[in-house]
Amino acid sequence: MNFELTEDQIAFAQTAKQFAEQELAPFAAQWDREHHFPVEAIQKAGELGFCGLYTPEESGGLGLSRLDSSIIFEELAMGCTTTTAMLTIHNMATWMIATWGQQEVKDQWCDDLVTGQKLASYCLTEPGAGSDAASLKSTAKEQDGGYVLNGSKVFISGAGSTDVLVVMARTGEEGPKGVSAFAVPANAEGISYGKAEEKMGWNAQPTRMITFDNVKLEKSWRLGEEGQGFKLAMQGLDGGRINIATCSIGTAQQALNTARNYMQEREQFGKPIAAFQALQFKLADMATELVAARQMVRLAAFKLDHGDADKTTYCAMAKRFATDVGFNVCNEALQLHGGYGYIKEYPLERHVRDVRVHQILEGTNEIMRVIIGRRLISDEREIR
Amino acid sequence: MNFELTEDQIAFAQTAKQFAEQELAPFAAQWDREHHFPVEAIQKAGELGFCGLYTPEESGGLGLSRLDSSIIFEELAMGCTTTTAMLTIHNMATWMIATWGQQEVKDQWCDDLVTGQKLASYCLTEPGAGSDAASLKSTAKEQDGGYVLNGSKVFISGAGSTDVLVVMARTGEEGPKGVSAFAVPANAEGISYGKAEEKMGWNAQPTRMITFDNVKLEKSWRLGEEGQGFKLAMQGLDGGRINIATCSIGTAQQALNTARNYMQEREQFGKPIAAFQALQFKLADMATELVAARQMVRLAAFKLDHGDADKTTYCAMAKRFATDVGFNVCNEALQLHGGYGYIKEYPLERHVRDVRVHQILEGTNEIMRVIIGRRLISDEREIR
Amino acid sequence: MNFELTEDQIAFAQTAKQFAEQELAPFAAQWDREHHFPVEAIQKAGELGFCGLYTPEESGGLGLSRLDSSIIFEELAMGCTTTTAMLTIHNMATWMIATWGQQEVKDQWCDDLVTGQKLASYCLTEPGAGSDAASLKSTAKEQDGGYVLNGSKVFISGAGSTDVLVVMARTGEEGPKGVSAFAVPANAEGISYGKAEEKMGWNAQPTRMITFDNVKLEKSWRLGEEGQGFKLAMQGLDGGRINIATCSIGTAQQALNTARNYMQEREQFGKPIAAFQALQFKLADMATELVAARQMVRLAAFKLDHGDADKTTYCAMAKRFATDVGFNVCNEALQLHGGYGYIKEYPLERHVRDVRVHQILEGTNEIMRVIIGRRLISDEREIR
Amino acid sequence: MNFELTEDQIAFAQTAKQFAEQELAPFAAQWDREHHFPVEAIQKAGELGFCGLYTPEESGGLGLSRLDSSIIFEELAMGCTTTTAMLTIHNMATWMIATWGQQEVKDQWCDDLVTGQKLASYCLTEPGAGSDAASLKSTAKEQDGGYVLNGSKVFISGAGSTDVLVVMARTGEEGPKGVSAFAVPANAEGISYGKAEEKMGWNAQPTRMITFDNVKLEKSWRLGEEGQGFKLAMQGLDGGRINIATCSIGTAQQALNTARNYMQEREQFGKPIAAFQALQFKLADMATELVAARQMVRLAAFKLDHGDADKTTYCAMAKRFATDVGFNVCNEALQLHGGYGYIKEYPLERHVRDVRVHQILEGTNEIMRVIIGRRLISDEREIR
Repeated sequence: MNFELTEDQIAFAQTAKQFAEQELAPFAAQWDREHHFPVEAIQKAGELGFCGLYTPEESGGLGLSRLDSSIIFEELAMGCTTTTAMLTIHNMATWMIATWGQQEVKDQWCDDLVTGQKLASYCLTEPGAGSDAASLKSTAKEQDGGYVLNGSKVFISGAGSTDVLVVMARTGEEGPKGVSAFAVPANAEGISYGKAEEKMGWNAQPTRMITFDNVKLEKSWRLGEEGQGFKLAMQGLDGGRINIATCSIGTAQQALNTARNYMQEREQFGKPIAAFQALQFKLADMATELVAARQMVRLAAFKLDHGDADKTTYCAMAKRFATDVGFNVCNEALQLHGGYGYIKEYPLERHVRDVRVHQILEGTNEIMRVIIGRRLISDEREIR
Repeated sequence: MNFELTEDQIAFAQTAKQFAEQELAPFAAQWDREHHFPVEAIQKAGELGFCGLYTPEESGGLGLSRLDSSIIFEELAMGCTTTTAMLTIHNMATWMIATWGQQEVKDQWCDDLVTGQKLASYCLTEPGAGSDAASLKSTAKEQDGGYVLNGSKVFISGAGSTDVLVVMARTGEEGPKGVSAFAVPANAEGISYGKAEEKMGWNAQPTRMITFDNVKLEKSWRLGEEGQGFKLAMQGLDGGRINIATCSIGTAQQALNTARNYMQEREQFGKPIAAFQALQFKLADMATELVAARQMVRLAAFKLDHGDADKTTYCAMAKRFATDVGFNVCNEALQLHGGYGYIKEYPLERHVRDVRVHQILEGTNEIMRVIIGRRLISDEREIR
Repeated sequence: MNFELTEDQIAFAQTAKQFAEQELAPFAAQWDREHHFPVEAIQKAGELGFCGLYTPEESGGLGLSRLDSSIIFEELAMGCTTTTAMLTIHNMATWMIATWGQQEVKDQWCDDLVTGQKLASYCLTEPGAGSDAASLKSTAKEQDGGYVLNGSKVFISGAGSTDVLVVMARTGEEGPKGVSAFAVPANAEGISYGKAEEKMGWNAQPTRMITFDNVKLEKSWRLGEEGQGFKLAMQGLDGGRINIATCSIGTAQQALNTARNYMQEREQFGKPIAAFQALQFKLADMATELVAARQMVRLAAFKLDHGDADKTTYCAMAKRFATDVGFNVCNEALQLHGGYGYIKEYPLERHVRDVRVHQILEGTNEIMRVIIGRRLISDEREIR
Repeated sequence: MNFELTEDQIAFAQTAKQFAEQELAPFAAQWDREHHFPVEAIQKAGELGFCGLYTPEESGGLGLSRLDSSIIFEELAMGCTTTTAMLTIHNMATWMIATWGQQEVKDQWCDDLVTGQKLASYCLTEPGAGSDAASLKSTAKEQDGGYVLNGSKVFISGAGSTDVLVVMARTGEEGPKGVSAFAVPANAEGISYGKAEEKMGWNAQPTRMITFDNVKLEKSWRLGEEGQGFKLAMQGLDGGRINIATCSIGTAQQALNTARNYMQEREQFGKPIAAFQALQFKLADMATELVAARQMVRLAAFKLDHGDADKTTYCAMAKRFATDVGFNVCNEALQLHGGYGYIKEYPLERHVRDVRVHQILEGTNEIMRVIIGRRLISDEREIR
């Protein structure tokens, strides 16, 4: 075991940190306020390779590990939670296209995706198929040598502002084995976008419903084999969960640092509030939980990188634990600011609003417990 | 002991419930979205007596107990947290004027305050004096048979839209004993209002900074004796804490009911999510904690009504416990809604944003612990 | 609503407190150490009426309410958790016999039970029927104008040292409706007792398995009608849950008081540890939770006394909440004592060991959540 | 970063696991019941090198890292918490003698200590100096070319059954800089031992008070320089905290495994209780927290091995987090067993009693928070 970052990892982190401080942090509050989707910032991130971190090098990505990527995303999330979360989804979808796309599709999209010139959305959830994703009802029926796609997807991050959609739709029987995945141009005929959802947070990216009305898909757009789509979607999510957990950790670290600095400056009862033991204890617990959460995420990323047989369980554990800790740390940091934590002049309330959704998406934390619990009772091998 | 509501209490609650359902609930989301301060709704509430619930009858109030008032406020908060919270602050300030005001001042304000034709703000907190309220720096110096008020107040609910300000300012020595309270017309010369603070929630009421620049106060505006102001402010807050705790409970009950209904309707994996045991357990814990919190609030109100020697401690306990439970219940109700909990089409995320500040204002929950802890170690009498 | 104790309640509490301080507290550690069942102390309690607190007066009991009884049991539990818990079980079983017994059985047992000259056990749980009590397998088959009882019961408090057993056994179909209840002399032929279980706590009372081997029951021993036994057992448990929750509260209050006194005496870093803010906060939270728990218990007792339609739900809520709070408060009080909390010279570790089982028996806290959760999702009426 | 164990670590763990299963687990309940100190088992452990795991090879130890040692201790703790905890204390004291002892003292003790033929105790805590260890009052005054030791120590693990005592005593000024450390033969004239403390758990090792009455110390017995004793004691504790945290993790893993197996076997309501979702969720959370705790411990061990500037902070974090998680997991595992969790026929209640003290000793978890909190507010470098 070795808990030290490599020199490369330290260098990546340093670059990401600088980018976050210069290109994200100064604008994050404004993007939240104005509900602005900072495509330009994402493109700049693309110039540094952050749009294809774990996309294979042969498709133009950096070919980094999930662990490397997590270290980078954490720094970015310290600058802007929402933009980084969008970046991670784009990375996930890009990786799926690069990994399972046919050559023609890869040629069409990958160059632009890894540079951030074009953006990708991940389209799995439906109105009636949230936690129970495998029951999705969108259909892609074979026709004229291709498919015809019908149905609708909800809560799609970036929808309306992205260029390609990774869509899971039913090509066969009920259940997970009847699902296939496709890379669909976002402007294909028959695709329409709903209004931007008004959300608690994550305002720096649009979330929309998408409706597919007899959208013609070419056969070559299919990712992997027919019937493999749900499996591919889940493999994408293993990494997606590490990513979103990472966004919680980065944001929480930022909130913790902000709170600590505030405690040193704010005086009450004749001394800095940092001098009050009960507040020190609170800060201590926040920091301790956060260190634990970071290790969980990195452990899961490592397991995923090494194809561990229990990688899905570790990813679920990391997602559950880190997004819960992330929310609690941000929420406590808000409390440590008193009234100032509640107003938008300070970043705390934004952090709380932004990380709140991480406990819900990419599989709710309840679904994470289902995954973990089933694994634990299913056989004898210990999870340690 | 008797845990049953009286017939009067049931009747009051019924009236309040109807008002909340008709005049508050249908508009609460809109008021939040548009940052609209619903003065008209408050005036309608005034017609029912809700603007002077525990103001003495001789000043035009209903002269109800704090317990009665809590039962009413709880129902109102189920319709709109923020508006009800503003109502409770108005009730507190009105009660202070009616209780400690000189006849002239009572004559000037009470009639309009108890009917909601005019509104009152409570002005204690300053930029450097939040938790340490007794260190406030605003001064009211005697001059020409009156006082001259200078200084500034922050986080003042309703500021800019209210008519009278209950202002605590220093007339004497440092510390709590040098503070006096005044009922100051909100449009007195020398008073200026800052911009409306952008807040996480509580958007249906403005929160502003107030600056006093050589504001001339008449002697008759003083509430109680000189030097009593901090004591009066704290007595006001005992009730204020019950009120705000009540707003958390009402909101949480609303959130809980909404979540239960959603669980019965929402299907996943082929059955209503209400059928899932882990979600039932969560709901059970939410309901249990909420029942406990409600009892705490009512116990504290009862102690306050009866002038119990430890009333301040019970009020602090109730405020700490009920606002924490209230937040947690709302937050869990959001989680039970999955992605729908995060969007503004559903009320959950608003509930979470609104009750969050209750853990901070009227004395942070950390200050509540200071009050409770000191009392516990101070002498031998048991708190039961 | 009225949260004040009546004069009678205060007087009862005072008597109980004195008894606890004189007859229980001085010996509790010794009884725990020596695994001594203090029958003599229970008999003394009986002289004061504590063995038939809510048994009807016509059967010799005091005919008090459950609320009165809870106030008394709380004081007793401050002296000895385990002995009081045994007393509460005896009270429950006695009440069952007095309420549903035929005259002959009442005549036989009640006089001695209410005075504590004889003791009763409650026999529901079986090796394979714990949480799923309705699946019990003991049978009472009709024969020769009576019944023949076969089967076994586990975790029976007092078993081997009590005089009459309230036994639930199957007289009919599977499920709850096939069960009947009986008052069986503890020394009836065919009854044998297992070894005293070695337990974590509750050492001042024996817990044994009971085996029934063709035990002949007279028809008159049946409590209520045939097939009503499970219902009666559950009605007994409603009160039993309030009782056991009360034992947690009394013990926790005792632990809290002990911790507070210790904090005032113990010095570290040059001052009493009571001066450390973080410890004050901990004490504040312990006291707050405990006040809430006490109110929950009293609310449930009141609902039970008044035959509220949701009495079972409130009893389940009170049991869940108060036994969890009770354990946590005792456990924190132990922690506040540092190393001294871990040794038997101090009472804290005993308190922790004793109250731990309250989270398990009379229906585990998981079963409480099942009861509460089902009720919440079953219909529209609010639980408040 | 690399989260995989090395082949050596896997082999060590395997050996330790086998030893735990054969030499510890079968006897742990008996040792607890009979309060038996299994010196013979410790000696067998010594044969495998477990008595000097991180003692330098030149002193006869295995010279392993703290990380290696933690991996080994975790396996041992799965067999017997208490015996393993004693082993870790012995390892710590042995390491102190081997690291800071003068050659003569090393020659005298190390051979026998690393093989477990002789045992060592660590003597820091005094009746009035627990959390405030630096205020210790025992004195070692220079006299006749040596020292004379007076004073008393409490809560000394192994006392009365060990051969050498690492004693911290005051040789100079008040405060930490006036303390020196000594390796004192346990049978030196003037040393007397109190009665074995009756404890909640940790019954497989004696805990006694030690009184020093004019005990003559030779100069050569001093460890390190005069005035360095407190520093050395704290350096020992950094590792000691990792060790004790490890004992919590191993025990909790054992409890978790036991609970999972029980859930698969125990049937209620017609199916294994493992089938109940709420119990699966509980198991999932237990496992998740435990994985996080293990990583925290290993991270801290790694930091200590590499002389990280913040090693003390990481050790404090690991100790706080892992001992809290360890207790909670054991306690939940008990709960999952229902009534069977409360009786000594099953190991759960023993696990709970044994790990409870880990939250107290080697610095209470409150002191851990003091250490962490102070570090966090002291300067700008992030703890990640």
